[in-house]
Amino acid sequence: MDDVKKRLDNLTKPPGSLGYLEELAIKIAGITKDNTPRVEKKEHIIMVGDHGIVKEGVSAFPQSITKAMVKNFLNEGAAVNVLARQYGVNISIVNIGMLEEINEEGLINANIKKGTNNFLYGPSMTLDQAVLSIENGIKITEEIIKKGADIIGTGEMGIGNTTPSSAIIAAVTKEDLDSIVGYGTGVNEEGLKNKKRVIKKALKVNNPSSEDGLDILSKVGGFEIGGMAGTMLAGAANNKPVMIDGLISGAAALIAYLIEPKVINYLIPSHKSVEPGHKKLYEYLNLRPFFNLEMRLGEGTGTIIGMSIVQSAVKILDEMATFDSLDF
Amino acid sequence: MDDVKKRLDNLTKPPGSLGYLEELAIKIAGITKDNTPRVEKKEHIIMVGDHGIVKEGVSAFPQSITKAMVKNFLNEGAAVNVLARQYGVNISIVNIGMLEEINEEGLINANIKKGTNNFLYGPSMTLDQAVLSIENGIKITEEIIKKGADIIGTGEMGIGNTTPSSAIIAAVTKEDLDSIVGYGTGVNEEGLKNKKRVIKKALKVNNPSSEDGLDILSKVGGFEIGGMAGTMLAGAANNKPVMIDGLISGAAALIAYLIEPKVINYLIPSHKSVEPGHKKLYEYLNLRPFFNLEMRLGEGTGTIIGMSIVQSAVKILDEMATFDSLDF
Repeated sequence: MDDVKKRLDNLTKPPGSLGYLEELAIKIAGITKDNTPRVEKKEHIIMVGDHGIVKEGVSAFPQSITKAMVKNFLNEGAAVNVLARQYGVNISIVNIGMLEEINEEGLINANIKKGTNNFLYGPSMTLDQAVLSIENGIKITEEIIKKGADIIGTGEMGIGNTTPSSAIIAAVTKEDLDSIVGYGTGVNEEGLKNKKRVIKKALKVNNPSSEDGLDILSKVGGFEIGGMAGTMLAGAANNKPVMIDGLISGAAALIAYLIEPKVINYLIPSHKSVEPGHKKLYEYLNLRPFFNLEMRLGEGTGTIIGMSIVQSAVKILDEMATFDSLDF
Repeated sequence: MDDVKKRLDNLTKPPGSLGYLEELAIKIAGITKDNTPRVEKKEHIIMVGDHGIVKEGVSAFPQSITKAMVKNFLNEGAAVNVLARQYGVNISIVNIGMLEEINEEGLINANIKKGTNNFLYGPSMTLDQAVLSIENGIKITEEIIKKGADIIGTGEMGIGNTTPSSAIIAAVTKEDLDSIVGYGTGVNEEGLKNKKRVIKKALKVNNPSSEDGLDILSKVGGFEIGGMAGTMLAGAANNKPVMIDGLISGAAALIAYLIEPKVINYLIPSHKSVEPGHKKLYEYLNLRPFFNLEMRLGEGTGTIIGMSIVQSAVKILDEMATFDSLDF
């Protein structure tokens, strides 16, 4: 990291004038333990799971959309596909907890259970299932890393998953629900009130720890959230940067952080989500997202753009001329 | 724009969930008068000029860096070149007011004068020269548009040019210099005090209007700032979106806006610069930059990344599946 800092200061620009791009280059050098890092092979992993809590009317969309959107991903028609094509990112889609079966080519099967339990009445999943969701995330991510990956994006699909994510953020940060819970994919005012009521009651019923990531994940989490936490831990263990997207991958970052705080050094924020809980979790993790497109879609749409900017940071380091080489 | 809004609402995402990307797609449709716009050919124009005010010690770098950096641009070794290669942007470099001559292939010559006058003692340039700088910017931009351009980025090089830019912002917004003037490429605290003192005195000596763009440009501006204002006016007149970069292109946007307020509808902000005056000019223009990499380099480094995100917005519109086509 010191080597990279020195090199950056000798490039043909005022020292520090590329701001966060320079910080990113230094961070990537530290993560990869390489003073000439490359970010060329960009891999994005979309974890998909369903949620029993949807029965409580917390989402603006029916649960069947989860499956329909997975087919859309496989047919390359979703927003994340369009962005991935533009920025040269490869996508892997993982069924880690889908309610409905689909046997289409290209979908990685790591299904733990057909959706979580309705956590209004008890834990989302067993502790063993929570562990398994993280282990599946680790395993799939390590397979992708083995094939070659310089950076990993985290995305998800799962109708209703801003509700478990908000519950996780509330459990960890202990902030007021009014400052955490948002409209998700677009519930109305009455829907927002209901969502807060459901989360409040579910936190009371389950009483999750604020410090034990596995306890929180099993009580109010989701399979795709565990899978994403697994991706983050696997990235860190293999010296690969992992990008955080919106609310759901942010909640997964909290789980990963509680399991192993050192993971934070390997996580790179991307965009600022419209969801209010996103701000709270970044304050808790002491990280700062660097662009704000007012998005609230999920799928990892923010990380696709973000990974390209990380690539810019290391290209600056690699390709810029030095002051020594300038012709005055 | 209504057509595009309708189409966006039928794409496979919650309505409005791509936030500013959707606003951008609608705006580009309006600018181009095309409900299926394309942003494929991305053109970036770097205007280069020198500044007599540098004699007052307002810059951390010697004036000779202007010429050295132009050679660096032509050799593709600068930050803007690295980013342009990554994001597929073509760069044109224009000598509109360089002090030193260089006759290298690839540099467009539109030199008006070898640097501005020191505006501490009188106007930077004559009114005719101010008009000519804008006209040269228009002419060069229209030539680039004729060869095919879907979007235009504005960049610049000119040691000392945060000083005329800050003076322009102060003249137009009438905000206090403490809230406008920044460290530029990196003067120290004493240098910052001197820079404010110089600008304060220069504004008193020249007494520029707050509403007459040509008056302000001629009294405290620079040739590259006039050229960039010309690019913005030419883009607008030809239904092409033009991106604003940092402090200097922002100051040019103020000049263009005072000449023709309708230009604002064709301008797209990119990043938030570290320079405090950048915030003030965006407040004045009622525009919002959408990413913050804490950059203060210039060259149009922000617009290169920004143009790619505009491209994302129209690709979303063009390539995403509709809900009608989903398989439930």
